[in-house]
Amino acid sequence: MAKNIPVVQKVLSGNDEIAAQNRQLLDDYGVYGINMMASPGAGKTSLIEKTVQYLRNSLNIGMINGDIATTFDAERAQKAGAVAVAVNTGGNCHLEAHMIRDALAELDLSEIDLLIVENIGNLVCPAGWTLGTHKNVLVASIPEGDDKPYKYPGMYRGVDVLVINKIDLLLYIPFDMNRFKQGVEILNPGLATFVSILSDGGRVARLDSMDM
Amino acid sequence: MAKNIPVVQKVLSGNDEIAAQNRQLLDDYGVYGINMMASPGAGKTSLIEKTVQYLRNSLNIGMINGDIATTFDAERAQKAGAVAVAVNTGGNCHLEAHMIRDALAELDLSEIDLLIVENIGNLVCPAGWTLGTHKNVLVASIPEGDDKPYKYPGMYRGVDVLVINKIDLLLYIPFDMNRFKQGVEILNPGLATFVSILSDGGRVARLDSMDM
Repeated sequence: MAKNIPVVQKVLSGNDEIAAQNRQLLDDYGVYGINMMASPGAGKTSLIEKTVQYLRNSLNIGMINGDIATTFDAERAQKAGAVAVAVNTGGNCHLEAHMIRDALAELDLSEIDLLIVENIGNLVCPAGWTLGTHKNVLVASIPEGDDKPYKYPGMYRGVDVLVINKIDLLLYIPFDMNRFKQGVEILNPGLATFVSILSDGGRVARLDSMDM
Repeated sequence: MAKNIPVVQKVLSGNDEIAAQNRQLLDDYGVYGINMMASPGAGKTSLIEKTVQYLRNSLNIGMINGDIATTFDAERAQKAGAVAVAVNTGGNCHLEAHMIRDALAELDLSEIDLLIVENIGNLVCPAGWTLGTHKNVLVASIPEGDDKPYKYPGMYRGVDVLVINKIDLLLYIPFDMNRFKQGVEILNPGLATFVSILSDGGRVARLDSMDM
């Protein structure tokens, strides 16, 4: 009879281990965490600003902003009414769980209900790194083109919610919504999807659920 | 008297070493190489298509397309009249010199005058990797917003030419050109800059030099 082969328990990677600790910390304080990802300029910060403005009377909102350089976006979220922490990654193309851990230490979690993490503008790297948040949200935008699900499958496969932003630009830009939707459906069937309408120069975003 | 301290010759990194070999190969065959970088959806492929269409009667053009997945863009360049090679990086967020070396082996360089490398759509990672091409070109686009030079300084600092694409969308999108230009000027004084006008649904691009 063959000797039993020992089965080693699945070991989390260093990043996943810290992400699990972050999640536990958020849960301990009853904080719901969102990891928002997108291309550069898709409209993450505008959407966060508007979300904060709409919800700030009913929820205390924290924001962790990942950026290569500058604190522009953290300042915008703060001005909108969030408690913001900026993480400058230097040259790093994505946030990692340890950066979130360090940023969480700067926040009074007992005073926060909703935490929005704005990741680095990048459709590749952030997809591979868990942070400990509860949901991954991808903001796509019409000017990026209808081929993006096919070209960045890792990102589209790994998200829980999709927001299609700048939908008003469909009037001016060729974009085959059926092609886009088919790509999304192949990678992430039934993905919860919203559209966001920019008006007033990008300052007003309206969200409607979209039947994919 | 202190002993002489030996000065070790600057050693190229593995990537830079292969990039230098790529450059030598291009020079041996009289091929001029361009490394085109941008955000996802800024319009690299459309610009390449149009460039190939305009120049194909006077120059033989090769195109190496880097993508996470799919050969869509390589097919578009081929259809426009280039000899195209697709490099699928899997999950990699940038092209590296060894990928270009392998792609060059697929091309008959004696039949090529101009080589256009389309990098992965990403404003972070590609900036750090030399490929052996002669010029780095960045395609920015109006929908990305006027803050991008400040937020992606590594990319804006390292390029030889900037194309501001989708300039027609200035009519519909708030974009402070002075703020954008100031950011570029700080990082890359005197950068050669062109604007590209999309009309006919992104199929016609016109390039004008822009006085920054």
